[in-house]
Amino acid sequence: MSQLDAVLARIDADLDSTLDRLFELLRIRSISTDPAFAADCRACAEWHVADLRSIGFEARAAATPGHPIVVGHERSTAGPSALFYGHYDVQPVDPLELWDHDPFEPLIETRPDGTRAIRARGASDDKGQLMTFVEACRAWQAVAGRLPIPVSILLEGEEESGGVNLPPFLKANADELRADIGLICDTNMWDPATPAIQTMLRGLCGEEIVIRGADRDLHSGFYGAAAANPNHVLARILADLRDADGRVTLPGFYDGVPELPAPLRAQWDELPFDESAFLGAVGLSVPAGERGRSVLEMTWSRPTCEVNGMGGGYQGEGFKTVIPAEASAKISFRLVFDQDPHAIRAAFRGFVRERVPADCKVEFTEHGSGRAIRFPIDAPAFGKIRDALGAEWGRDAFFIGGGGSIPVTHELKNALGMDVVLAGFALDDDRIHSPNEKYELESFRRGVRSWARILHALGS
Amino acid sequence: MSQLDAVLARIDADLDSTLDRLFELLRIRSISTDPAFAADCRACAEWHVADLRSIGFEARAAATPGHPIVVGHERSTAGPSALFYGHYDVQPVDPLELWDHDPFEPLIETRPDGTRAIRARGASDDKGQLMTFVEACRAWQAVAGRLPIPVSILLEGEEESGGVNLPPFLKANADELRADIGLICDTNMWDPATPAIQTMLRGLCGEEIVIRGADRDLHSGFYGAAAANPNHVLARILADLRDADGRVTLPGFYDGVPELPAPLRAQWDELPFDESAFLGAVGLSVPAGERGRSVLEMTWSRPTCEVNGMGGGYQGEGFKTVIPAEASAKISFRLVFDQDPHAIRAAFRGFVRERVPADCKVEFTEHGSGRAIRFPIDAPAFGKIRDALGAEWGRDAFFIGGGGSIPVTHELKNALGMDVVLAGFALDDDRIHSPNEKYELESFRRGVRSWARILHALGS
Repeated sequence: MSQLDAVLARIDADLDSTLDRLFELLRIRSISTDPAFAADCRACAEWHVADLRSIGFEARAAATPGHPIVVGHERSTAGPSALFYGHYDVQPVDPLELWDHDPFEPLIETRPDGTRAIRARGASDDKGQLMTFVEACRAWQAVAGRLPIPVSILLEGEEESGGVNLPPFLKANADELRADIGLICDTNMWDPATPAIQTMLRGLCGEEIVIRGADRDLHSGFYGAAAANPNHVLARILADLRDADGRVTLPGFYDGVPELPAPLRAQWDELPFDESAFLGAVGLSVPAGERGRSVLEMTWSRPTCEVNGMGGGYQGEGFKTVIPAEASAKISFRLVFDQDPHAIRAAFRGFVRERVPADCKVEFTEHGSGRAIRFPIDAPAFGKIRDALGAEWGRDAFFIGGGGSIPVTHELKNALGMDVVLAGFALDDDRIHSPNEKYELESFRRGVRSWARILHALGS
Repeated sequence: MSQLDAVLARIDADLDSTLDRLFELLRIRSISTDPAFAADCRACAEWHVADLRSIGFEARAAATPGHPIVVGHERSTAGPSALFYGHYDVQPVDPLELWDHDPFEPLIETRPDGTRAIRARGASDDKGQLMTFVEACRAWQAVAGRLPIPVSILLEGEEESGGVNLPPFLKANADELRADIGLICDTNMWDPATPAIQTMLRGLCGEEIVIRGADRDLHSGFYGAAAANPNHVLARILADLRDADGRVTLPGFYDGVPELPAPLRAQWDELPFDESAFLGAVGLSVPAGERGRSVLEMTWSRPTCEVNGMGGGYQGEGFKTVIPAEASAKISFRLVFDQDPHAIRAAFRGFVRERVPADCKVEFTEHGSGRAIRFPIDAPAFGKIRDALGAEWGRDAFFIGGGGSIPVTHELKNALGMDVVLAGFALDDDRIHSPNEKYELESFRRGVRSWARILHALGS
């Protein structure tokens, strides 16, 4: 039996205790965006430090102005080095009443067809995913007493809340963190049987605005029409953001957005992607967005503008005839190619200010920004990883685009000069950021095995 | 000393115990729109029944499908009869953090200039106001052993939550409730020194809509643009409701809305109304609404459309890149002259349906409807009441318009054939429906004295 085979065998044999560790981690309420959970985030970072130390890593929880960043190194082997990035924070869990169970009490669901899912907030995004890598390291240490290559691990605690403290941390610790290749496990498979490496990633520009009118809530009978209503002002701004063809109307928004190169478009057109199934899985049937563009194109290579949250006035039971003193919204832009998040933010703020009447004020809050990114898929590491994934899953991994934004990818490239391989085992139906998030148990088990193979391949 | 003078003297002498009773009433959390306070509403109704019985009324709390309606009669005197209407329910108190004190722990605030205000939710709207009438009856009973005229009292518990159960109750009990004149104390003075009788009242049409898209919240990175976003759909609908000139765009909305008759417009133009002061009192300076119309015209005689509440997606701390499964809004239309609330509702629903894309659903909920109303100010009762108010306040009462909607006024006219005198002692700055609601102690004291005079005048 080769050493790799022994490692793979141990991973399968050790699955129960592997899941015990994951469940411990999933029980920690590390919601980074809500200050009420700051202590939980710290506890989560400390859990990782202890866990990494238990498998031979030198590890610490580094303080930041926000939640700690976990850093671990196990570099006793020579060879090309890797830096693995994950995030231990999770999304909020509201609306809680839509969960079938306590989001922080993980459980295994066995379906009638025998497949099993790990259910909890963070099961997929990103605790389950990041532990596939950690457990692969554990198995190598247990079987071989060493890792195949020098490995550093970097776990962020603010990926779901803007991540403003990571870039300065990377810059300040560039020499310590730099490696030959970056590895990130925060993306999806093509389908449950087909692995994928994401080679394009959209950027993000997040903004929050608050429109303020009168200095108190007003009775709409006494002040209606005469007093500026922040709800109306906000609705007008949000409605104006997209035109009737689904295009974003900010001046200069499409600067730096080329049409898709013909060969790439041709490759994507051949991907077995079923728009009806994609939308049908979430109860929809008609593609929205830009007229004349496919769903794959829109979600992989076109910029978007989404109102992620908005609110103003009375939202409780019944009715209250009030003109609210303020209304607010959270808006995110997904960016592609060479769009500049800072230019987009400036254009957005100008667009909003133009639409705020003299009697209202507007306040802006920045929630993260990152450029889009593309990787050189002909570099050797990409080929080795593609082959390792193919060996585990029995079919070739697809090189794909993707809609999410992982700003750290850009930061690793910029601050540390590293290329990054995005290989994840999540599925489209994992309901990340939604109630009843899950991660396939098979994604977890074969994800661990995949990383064991990748570590081996990178060291060969 | 005349009997009226003795009654007035007793009112002033008895002020402390009068306030004790009002404070008891203000401590009851009778928020009608929130089902969590149903028991408090019932307790409030029962408090009134006991109080009315203590001053010689035959009284009961009549069950309805919602909160009880209190009915009391003291008809031992002959003469023209009156039906007094008030409401014991109050508005919700959120946002609670903007209150300077517990909204249900009333207190008297003494200002540097010696004026005093009663502060509590409901102090003005309508518990303080309705008790001015009840206390006037109490004083007459104490001094004269009788009321000057036959009096019935009707106290609703759902005025702030649609009031759907009152019209059928009025119809079912028309013979018991009918009187020669209706009296309502739920309106404002012209200013702190000048009483007013409101002779025009706008109608109301309230609607709630919920827009539903996907069957769960989606990650905007994976589904952005491709999936319909209910926030965008709702923002578009709300923005479209008013045009750039502030006019409401619903088809047929202005049917039955004439221009103000020239003489009335001339009278209003002469009223000492200061737009800057009106808006400045709430931190505003620029009139919004219909271009070319005065604030008084807009709030008294023009129909309006206000978004009283809206919400969708993530509204907590921080940021969450979600496409929400649903978004909702509460919208009210204030109606004037001959606008038909049912036609407006139908037009609104058609307008919304036209703007909901194929992939979304919309759900409508009705929240009350009532036509606008005008009263015959040359009828004898109006003159007697105007004179009685003039005697108490030392200056003539103004006949004015008004922006609020008191649907019961229309119902009293329709179901019982009664004219209604709207005489109240609230002030524009009472912050009804807002945090830190208050009622001037002088409004309360002289309000009680005013009703004592009015009862006397109606019996003369």
